Amino acid sequence: MAVYTHLGAEDLAALIAHYDLGTLKSVKGIAEGVSNSNWLIETSKARYILTMYERRIETSDLPYFLGLLDHLAAAHCPVPRTIHDREGAAFRMMGDKAVALIEFLPGVSPDQPTVGQARSVGAALAEMHLAAQDFPFQRANTLGPGSWADVLENCGADALASIDPALPATAIAAREVANNWPKGLPETIIHSDLFPDNVLMLDGQVTGMIDFYFACTGAAAYDLAVTHAAWCFTNDGSQLRPKISRALIAGYETLRPLESAERTALPVLAQGACLRFISSRAADWLEMQDDALVCRKNPIEFVKRLSQYRDMGSRAFQ
Amino acid sequence: MAVYTHLGAEDLAALIAHYDLGTLKSVKGIAEGVSNSNWLIETSKARYILTMYERRIETSDLPYFLGLLDHLAAAHCPVPRTIHDREGAAFRMMGDKAVALIEFLPGVSPDQPTVGQARSVGAALAEMHLAAQDFPFQRANTLGPGSWADVLENCGADALASIDPALPATAIAAREVANNWPKGLPETIIHSDLFPDNVLMLDGQVTGMIDFYFACTGAAAYDLAVTHAAWCFTNDGSQLRPKISRALIAGYETLRPLESAERTALPVLAQGACLRFISSRAADWLEMQDDALVCRKNPIEFVKRLSQYRDMGSRAFQ
Repeated sequence: MAVYTHLGAEDLAALIAHYDLGTLKSVKGIAEGVSNSNWLIETSKARYILTMYERRIETSDLPYFLGLLDHLAAAHCPVPRTIHDREGAAFRMMGDKAVALIEFLPGVSPDQPTVGQARSVGAALAEMHLAAQDFPFQRANTLGPGSWADVLENCGADALASIDPALPATAIAAREVANNWPKGLPETIIHSDLFPDNVLMLDGQVTGMIDFYFACTGAAAYDLAVTHAAWCFTNDGSQLRPKISRALIAGYETLRPLESAERTALPVLAQGACLRFISSRAADWLEMQDDALVCRKNPIEFVKRLSQYRDMGSRAFQ
Repeated sequence: MAVYTHLGAEDLAALIAHYDLGTLKSVKGIAEGVSNSNWLIETSKARYILTMYERRIETSDLPYFLGLLDHLAAAHCPVPRTIHDREGAAFRMMGDKAVALIEFLPGVSPDQPTVGQARSVGAALAEMHLAAQDFPFQRANTLGPGSWADVLENCGADALASIDPALPATAIAAREVANNWPKGLPETIIHSDLFPDNVLMLDGQVTGMIDFYFACTGAAAYDLAVTHAAWCFTNDGSQLRPKISRALIAGYETLRPLESAERTALPVLAQGACLRFISSRAADWLEMQDDALVCRKNPIEFVKRLSQYRDMGSRAFQ
């Protein structure tokens, strides 16, 4: 959660003038996103989210991320449309930083998902996977299985142990999982970060999937495994919630039934999902600048999930 | 700017159910306020600001702060109304923390105020001073002239110098200003923190004065001096903006002409205003917890203002 940059009212009004959005009525810096600054703005026409890209996101990737939103929105997926300026550009520069405006979507992120909510998000994920299949651009997963052990080893065993004694051993697990990584699974564009706080819901239905800044080409079943790890445990990671797990997978399969190889792969994919978040959270924990207005996320919540996925195998998905 | 506490959707929906506000449609943590967590929420009825009181604010003061909003709103001052729950309470407890809902007001805070904006805020401040005169409750100023030198001396000269070499001398200035503090000036309820980011404006008019959590009984002219220090300089404090200064005072006097004693007192009141922010910002700078999601504000911007007020005397207000 962050607003890294002060944005004056006058700067903002000048920005808005490049769009066909009427005049500025309200602006609030919002505490969302860890890679960028975000403002909820209201004009005489509607409400929008303004994002300023601060770190991690390459400007050269923006046409991919913003184009994907437009592609998915056109296919009626519940994602925010990108607002284009009068010249048709999806993003603009303010000084040396890129900014983009996207549609504001109503909805509230669940904190303790219900069976109905898990079923809905499963279906929305499958819908997104199907709609993305004809998106014409590719982006490699920079946080894929080849990266996790390296990230953890670069942290150093002592530093990892300073966060939690269980962390150093996850580097070994990361090598094992990468070595056993399934090949040949069906690929599409994956969100790869679909935590509950990236999903907006109203009345049990998904009204918005947001924050596609980790989207990339990848195995659809891996994205389901990421979503499983993010949604199907108590928030501290200590306990799988079997009914939520079944509802998520059933919801997904209403639109895109899993192939046999995908179902078989789920246990290792889910361990990989845990290692992806363990490794990035551990590195962020150690690297976090003192002045960054960011809540550090504890990697240990995903060590607990990893342990359960290893112990339970395919039973975690039944 | 801060959201200190995670507030789950389910907790929030349960809170909203205590009010006659319909159902929850959206919630965004907002990066405003340093003493509390704030969320912009939307229900099927309207938009509101939810505040959770985290630090500095005593629950026993809430009836004063929230009652003042209702008093001023009833007098048609541009301040947000407090939303009362079904039992009529202005605030509720969530666990051990108090929370309150207030009206959402449109408007944008100016960053580089114009003459027209300065005139409007002057008039709005005078209107507030007049409307507050029959507010029946008292609250002492806990950050008054008696406190500044003590706060600075408690920081320690070395610690102050570690922020900026000019800071230790301000403790001496604080004693001088407190010793020369004017007595017998007309008192009312003062906002005492009316920075541009606590004012919302549209089309040059004030649509909202917010964040009354430093409101207290005090000299009206001191509040004007605080507002002068906050509005009438370039943002780094290096340069008085004379046209803005004249517009602010002229706007104030359209509704409440200054008495001769008030006008005479402005130079020392304005030095006091600077010392109030120098002392609190220096203490905050040194005390700031690592995990607080707060932008530290540099006290030096007000040392620069103080220096100009001392050099210019009454010319700063002409």
